[in-house]
Amino acid sequence: MKRLTGGITAPTGFTAAGVRAGIKKKNTDPDLALVVSSTPGPIAGMFTTNEVVAAPVIADRRRLAGGQGRAIVVNSGCANACTGAPGLRDAEEMAALVANALGIPSRQVFVGSTGVIGQRLPMPKIRAAIPELIRRARRTGGRDAARAILTTDTRAKEAAYQDRIGGRVVTVGGMCKGSGMIHPDMATMLAYVSTDAVIGRRVLQTALGDAVEASFNCISVDGDTSTNDTILCLANGCAGNAPIRTGTPDGRRFQRLLEAVCRELARAICWDGEGVTKVMELIVRGCRTERDARLVAKAISTSVLVKTAMFGEDANWGRIMAAAGRAGVRLRPHTVTLQFGDTPIVRGGMTLGARAERRIARIVRQREFTITLDLGQGKASARRWFTDLSFDYVRINASYRS
Amino acid sequence: MKRLTGGITAPTGFTAAGVRAGIKKKNTDPDLALVVSSTPGPIAGMFTTNEVVAAPVIADRRRLAGGQGRAIVVNSGCANACTGAPGLRDAEEMAALVANALGIPSRQVFVGSTGVIGQRLPMPKIRAAIPELIRRARRTGGRDAARAILTTDTRAKEAAYQDRIGGRVVTVGGMCKGSGMIHPDMATMLAYVSTDAVIGRRVLQTALGDAVEASFNCISVDGDTSTNDTILCLANGCAGNAPIRTGTPDGRRFQRLLEAVCRELARAICWDGEGVTKVMELIVRGCRTERDARLVAKAISTSVLVKTAMFGEDANWGRIMAAAGRAGVRLRPHTVTLQFGDTPIVRGGMTLGARAERRIARIVRQREFTITLDLGQGKASARRWFTDLSFDYVRINASYRS
Repeated sequence: MKRLTGGITAPTGFTAAGVRAGIKKKNTDPDLALVVSSTPGPIAGMFTTNEVVAAPVIADRRRLAGGQGRAIVVNSGCANACTGAPGLRDAEEMAALVANALGIPSRQVFVGSTGVIGQRLPMPKIRAAIPELIRRARRTGGRDAARAILTTDTRAKEAAYQDRIGGRVVTVGGMCKGSGMIHPDMATMLAYVSTDAVIGRRVLQTALGDAVEASFNCISVDGDTSTNDTILCLANGCAGNAPIRTGTPDGRRFQRLLEAVCRELARAICWDGEGVTKVMELIVRGCRTERDARLVAKAISTSVLVKTAMFGEDANWGRIMAAAGRAGVRLRPHTVTLQFGDTPIVRGGMTLGARAERRIARIVRQREFTITLDLGQGKASARRWFTDLSFDYVRINASYRS
Repeated sequence: MKRLTGGITAPTGFTAAGVRAGIKKKNTDPDLALVVSSTPGPIAGMFTTNEVVAAPVIADRRRLAGGQGRAIVVNSGCANACTGAPGLRDAEEMAALVANALGIPSRQVFVGSTGVIGQRLPMPKIRAAIPELIRRARRTGGRDAARAILTTDTRAKEAAYQDRIGGRVVTVGGMCKGSGMIHPDMATMLAYVSTDAVIGRRVLQTALGDAVEASFNCISVDGDTSTNDTILCLANGCAGNAPIRTGTPDGRRFQRLLEAVCRELARAICWDGEGVTKVMELIVRGCRTERDARLVAKAISTSVLVKTAMFGEDANWGRIMAAAGRAGVRLRPHTVTLQFGDTPIVRGGMTLGARAERRIARIVRQREFTITLDLGQGKASARRWFTDLSFDYVRINASYRS
């Protein structure tokens, strides 16, 4: 497996573009992105589980039932959520405009939106921008597209990996946006992955589900609860490999490729989290069940008291213990151990003393470190990456719409 | 019912004191508090449901089984949590020191602690301070005690109400601390209530449960999930009223007194929340079940995206909709209405337009306002008070231990 530079257009047969349509209020950044495959192909997807669902998610869910995709058009600056039936018509029109210009069926054009909730899409601006967007689509346009889907993100997020599969070189590329990190359920995450692999739709959907579980779902973004969260993976078959099947060596190689792309994108979201100064890897182990481990990991990684302590470089392990204690999981303090990096600080639910405290005080000054909590009750475990909570987070979120 | 100035010593037969024992690191504030009743009496209590429980909670739970109380000793600056068996011995010794000095059984002395988790109590300092603490106990000492239990709180919190019950004047007084508000599950709340009413232990426990439900549990403090959360209510019978029974007019009058004290204390916690600049009243109605209403209220009132928007005086109603949508409750956007104060902004899941937006933009600039979300599905409702999230919250919590 080889890591490439580039992103969504790294696989054969994909072009992309990003232009400024004027949807975003303040800046001069691009806000309309396009990805086009030279041929239609199977497409897999996962969406938010929020009960309040944005119009583009409704539109994409319908399309996904058809199973074939060829293009994806995404705007930033407006989420097209809480916009009712008119919003859904806007999303459909956005897809139709691209479909007509490309001369392909509208059902093969997927749409995405991210930005402020509750405002209608500025359709005149989008209508005006689409011809230019399509003119600009090219093999080297991946970066422009990756930039055009950003909101409060500070950096474009791209990844691409390549391997020999089924007798041919197969590439997986991707781009994503997401930085509202602190309350993971609320982060809007959009991720788009392309591949030139020959692969069936069901195999692709299973592979994508597993890859998301091992990447985006580990960074507490969860991918499932903003109104707009979407991940799509489009496969155009241009690599000409022998079809990939689940459970075969080729299937596993493809899974590794897909996971590598998803993990790199997920990690980029973490580091570009709003106001983030640190990323912690949290390992919760010694649990009776995986569900227990995940509940404890969630309680700790979403605790703002833990997050603010990390920002303050305060190894306040008591807050980690208290968060674990309210996770809804049976917990006996006297069997609990906790360590920062390789340094134990809690054994039997109690501190190991001033010397250990001084050692972990040095660890929390690092930009990246591991926190390992062992409940001492079983063998199940969970892993998460989470971020700190800084002044900048509040600044960004207090003034997001102004 | 009459509101009094004063707090825990307002009822007949209670004295209190607060002194500086030197447990807190930085300041010159008092950090050791005492409340003493002239006679033992029935005591009711509720504690954290966190699996990680502080030593004083373990000690108090044992004492509560005995059902009689006479004194409460509380320190701030150290939570005595995650301190294992030695911590429990410290808590017991703290109670015994007070008991010996007062010449009463140790089982009638309740203990409380609040502050940093994971550090042992500085027992030499506590031993040295207790004689002075007991010497200072007096009728006018309520304020000193209320100050001595504070941590990051900026104000002492006291309340007292009086009414004629069972032929006599009955008074209920109280004090509390609590200001770590944003992640309600983590707020340490200590509340102590005194009354001179003649009342049985079971009647008192039921009355306290109902009062907490209508006060502390409405401000999202929940009272149930830090390692130390405690509320105790001690009744010494000095008023000489006919015994209060549940379900009688006297019982209801006493309930109103107790709720008035608890509500005023709960409200004081809200306004003294760390870095708080606004307090919002949230009403969630039109739900199928009360459980649904509470889940939606919790999702909204704990959403940091909602809280930071309120701090930024941004009427970002989309975040409220999105938080409601991820509460785990079935929600049809087209039946949802939302209003700020008396001004509707969302109907059928969609914005009512620019004029309504301008009107609610004025409302969110107020220090206090109501947000009403109606799911349009039924008749159940829930109410909460919640606070915004400001720069100061991060500042306070990033540097809490340093």
